[in-house]
Amino acid sequence: MAETNATHEPIRFETHPERYVHWRLEFPAEYGGAVARVVMDVKEERGLRPGYPLKLNSYDLGVDIELADAFQRIRFEHPDVRAVIVTSGKDRIFCSGANIYMLGSSTHGFKVNFCKFTNETRLYLEEMSAESSITSLCALNGTGSGGGYELAIACDEIVLADDGSSAVSFPEAPLLAVLPGTGGLTRLVDKRKIRRDLADAFSTIAEGVRGKRSVEWGLVDESPPKAKFEEAVKRRVDGILARSKRKAFPKMTLPPLEVKRSDKGAEYKYVSVAFDPKARTATLTMRAPTGKEPQNPEELAKVGASAWAVQAFRELDDALLDLRFNQPLIGVVAVKTTGDAEAVLAVDAMLSKHKDDGLVREVILLMKRVLKRMDMTAKSFFALAEPGSCFVGSLLELALASDRIYMKDSEDDEVSVATSPMNAGLFPMGNGLSRLHTRFLKDPTQVARVLEQGAMTTPEALKAGLVTFAPDDIDWDDEIRIAFEERSAMSPDAMTGMEANLRFAGPETMETKIFARLSAWQNWIFQRPNAVGERGALTLYGKPERPEFNWNRT
Amino acid sequence: MAETNATHEPIRFETHPERYVHWRLEFPAEYGGAVARVVMDVKEERGLRPGYPLKLNSYDLGVDIELADAFQRIRFEHPDVRAVIVTSGKDRIFCSGANIYMLGSSTHGFKVNFCKFTNETRLYLEEMSAESSITSLCALNGTGSGGGYELAIACDEIVLADDGSSAVSFPEAPLLAVLPGTGGLTRLVDKRKIRRDLADAFSTIAEGVRGKRSVEWGLVDESPPKAKFEEAVKRRVDGILARSKRKAFPKMTLPPLEVKRSDKGAEYKYVSVAFDPKARTATLTMRAPTGKEPQNPEELAKVGASAWAVQAFRELDDALLDLRFNQPLIGVVAVKTTGDAEAVLAVDAMLSKHKDDGLVREVILLMKRVLKRMDMTAKSFFALAEPGSCFVGSLLELALASDRIYMKDSEDDEVSVATSPMNAGLFPMGNGLSRLHTRFLKDPTQVARVLEQGAMTTPEALKAGLVTFAPDDIDWDDEIRIAFEERSAMSPDAMTGMEANLRFAGPETMETKIFARLSAWQNWIFQRPNAVGERGALTLYGKPERPEFNWNRT
Repeated sequence: MAETNATHEPIRFETHPERYVHWRLEFPAEYGGAVARVVMDVKEERGLRPGYPLKLNSYDLGVDIELADAFQRIRFEHPDVRAVIVTSGKDRIFCSGANIYMLGSSTHGFKVNFCKFTNETRLYLEEMSAESSITSLCALNGTGSGGGYELAIACDEIVLADDGSSAVSFPEAPLLAVLPGTGGLTRLVDKRKIRRDLADAFSTIAEGVRGKRSVEWGLVDESPPKAKFEEAVKRRVDGILARSKRKAFPKMTLPPLEVKRSDKGAEYKYVSVAFDPKARTATLTMRAPTGKEPQNPEELAKVGASAWAVQAFRELDDALLDLRFNQPLIGVVAVKTTGDAEAVLAVDAMLSKHKDDGLVREVILLMKRVLKRMDMTAKSFFALAEPGSCFVGSLLELALASDRIYMKDSEDDEVSVATSPMNAGLFPMGNGLSRLHTRFLKDPTQVARVLEQGAMTTPEALKAGLVTFAPDDIDWDDEIRIAFEERSAMSPDAMTGMEANLRFAGPETMETKIFARLSAWQNWIFQRPNAVGERGALTLYGKPERPEFNWNRT
Repeated sequence: MAETNATHEPIRFETHPERYVHWRLEFPAEYGGAVARVVMDVKEERGLRPGYPLKLNSYDLGVDIELADAFQRIRFEHPDVRAVIVTSGKDRIFCSGANIYMLGSSTHGFKVNFCKFTNETRLYLEEMSAESSITSLCALNGTGSGGGYELAIACDEIVLADDGSSAVSFPEAPLLAVLPGTGGLTRLVDKRKIRRDLADAFSTIAEGVRGKRSVEWGLVDESPPKAKFEEAVKRRVDGILARSKRKAFPKMTLPPLEVKRSDKGAEYKYVSVAFDPKARTATLTMRAPTGKEPQNPEELAKVGASAWAVQAFRELDDALLDLRFNQPLIGVVAVKTTGDAEAVLAVDAMLSKHKDDGLVREVILLMKRVLKRMDMTAKSFFALAEPGSCFVGSLLELALASDRIYMKDSEDDEVSVATSPMNAGLFPMGNGLSRLHTRFLKDPTQVARVLEQGAMTTPEALKAGLVTFAPDDIDWDDEIRIAFEERSAMSPDAMTGMEANLRFAGPETMETKIFARLSAWQNWIFQRPNAVGERGALTLYGKPERPEFNWNRT
């Protein structure tokens, strides 16, 4: 396999519109701040790694990190925005998708994590529409192929210029022997509800579909002649603005996170990560608020992004991405909390009381997205509730998102956990259910009981089904040590597959379909010689040789 | 990889209780025919291929073919049966799962198809309970591990002897670096609704869980001491019999299918398969009834399994399995029908009119299962509706199960397709919806319109959305030829993954979760060096060397 297996430079996920290389975030004057234009204009030579010019607005992870940042900033820093236009700054090309040479030269693990991140970004765009009433329109002023069209169908509406050449297409299967793996196949049949036979034909026509037929097949919503393109976009944007119900609120600026990184881990204000490379484990600790936290939305707006709920969860998000991309050898993560449980519960009380306030709502949605990022992280998480821990309310979600919860049954030093109103559905998982609901699928009445119960001692929490194991003072150290040793000795692949199957019981949504069905198949295909072997289609793309396939159907 | 890539002897799927090697199908006298006992007693040296003794009631495909046959015969040949006991004829061991040496020496493609077939068999057991009111009880008179416990949780009830040694376990991940891939992980959290953290712990404890804890964790329903085991089983069977609502009906004996096989294909009475190995395509033709068909349930009982609805669909089932296992190089299948459309519609009218009759119900369920087998077959199906074809009613389902439908728009020789009441929900797909409903998810009112419309010409069918493409007389030959050439030139893996994503829009069920999420992850893991590489855990099982893992988490 032509893969670069060398450890790459650490990837960092923070950026700012002033530093964007590949996108422009514009607020057209004619809409008075109600519309954000996200303009893709990729700089060919500024890929994250050398070796693959980003031609034709193709993208790599660096391009997508900027896009994710733009979506986050629109929500917090531009509360007046009610419509987002996604478009291209280049002529005749919207976006040609993930860069093929980048994919071809990436390790399997990087490919999988890259696709996961880009999937999350597209789901965030859809969540922005569903939850924050910021509707998106893709103005396809040129061809959108592969990941380019996948970005388009993540938008609410699509206008494609009918100029005789601009098309939408999924050339992955016919040209590269892989799948449109960033939600494309799922969104065709489950979001746009395109008939399976038309979706089949579309996904095998490398050159794609243009103009009238693209509307007939349901691939785009409108395909006006080039001369009427801007007019059509404007008409749709005006319609979106008229329908939007987004509530006004004071903007919140997101400053850079302060973090001290070393070989041993990372220290944020509220989050610490300590690596133990030899054991292939890490410890992730989240701290409760220590000072005065906002008592109401007005104070929250004044305090801004240094409020615990925002800063701690932004730090957690960054720490999770660092674990995913920069710490591939770490398999098991101990999840801990420390500090004043009452301080966490006070924040939760404020947030849940004012959950309908525009800014508070955005903060809760941010926390929700970060917790989902944890659900989707391919590491084993074991939560450890010890004396001094504060697994309560929004921090209890960290335990509920973990694969197991160990709670010390201590003679002298009582440990407790507690629910808060934040556990009652404000942080749904990808399956649409709260973590408590998913946990108690067998007896959903237990959800209400646990929510009412408040603080619980170890025996109470064990009885209530919140805790997996509750070793006492004598057994704790040994049991925890053995649990981590055993887990980190198991095949990383088997653990990833097992966790992906056990974490998401209950209903399936488009989101869980994308991460489970589509991504699992794509991961399989990303291993197959027909795609990534020496003579595979992905490997040979752009070379004079034709790929050679093993014709066995599996 | 230590794989046997040699083409194996063709696998045949027909058998009979008198020829069973590994199972006994018993009808204990004390229940007067109301109970079937399916007793696993695997003959070590009678594996389907040499090289892997089937120790400890481990199984290979040959064992599962007999089990599937037993379930089918219970339904048709033993209409008095209302309870099935699945148990072992060996002491202290129920079943140790799929044979590891068999898996380790199988090609990737065989592993995947083996798991698919065993998954179907377990789903048939569950369908027997859900649809035919034949409840199953697993009497674990010994340890059920891996696929052994997966068979147990496919049953409605599980009794495990508490004898100090019998356990249930999933040792796949800790010992073999693969997943319990026959529905096990899905059924833990989605069927038995076991808490995810307990499921996580259970799935990593190689030695499994016994006695009281197995009941506490929800893994089994009861774990009586050995001395009270038979009593507990009897009490539960009596309860099942008292609750069963199965309707009595005359039995139908299933004789062997008559088929002429050659290198060129297979000729059944109502089904023909013609291979074109060079093109890597096949043509599957299904013929309408030609003689007199039963007019009512009484005549159906008299005519027996030679009735078209039974025989034609049993033949189709056999043909599909032959394509899957014995024709791996064939990638694209042309689906054709010939004969008298009215004859098909007459059968459909009889079946739908008497759908609540016990025997008719079983026939419809058989047809449903065969059509699902087609949905789950990893070949591209292109239906070709030409003059003389009869894609109507139950045969229209073959077209609706296909990835594309081509219908000739002929000047002289009119082609038509038609719905019947059988298309209105009697053949649900794995997602729980009819194929018409899945097709028209965007506008479900179209389902009723199409059902009312009756016969449709090509332009009408095209307009109604039943047909993908409708080339005219001039274009037909070229367009079809090109479509098949293009399809069979694409990567088989990409097509398998693409079809698995496009065929099942809409809701997910435990069944679609098993085939999509779980199987796709298992397929991925079955490709990973940590499992199947030279130093992988599956490869080295039973050898003195320890597996070596690549510790990267993906």
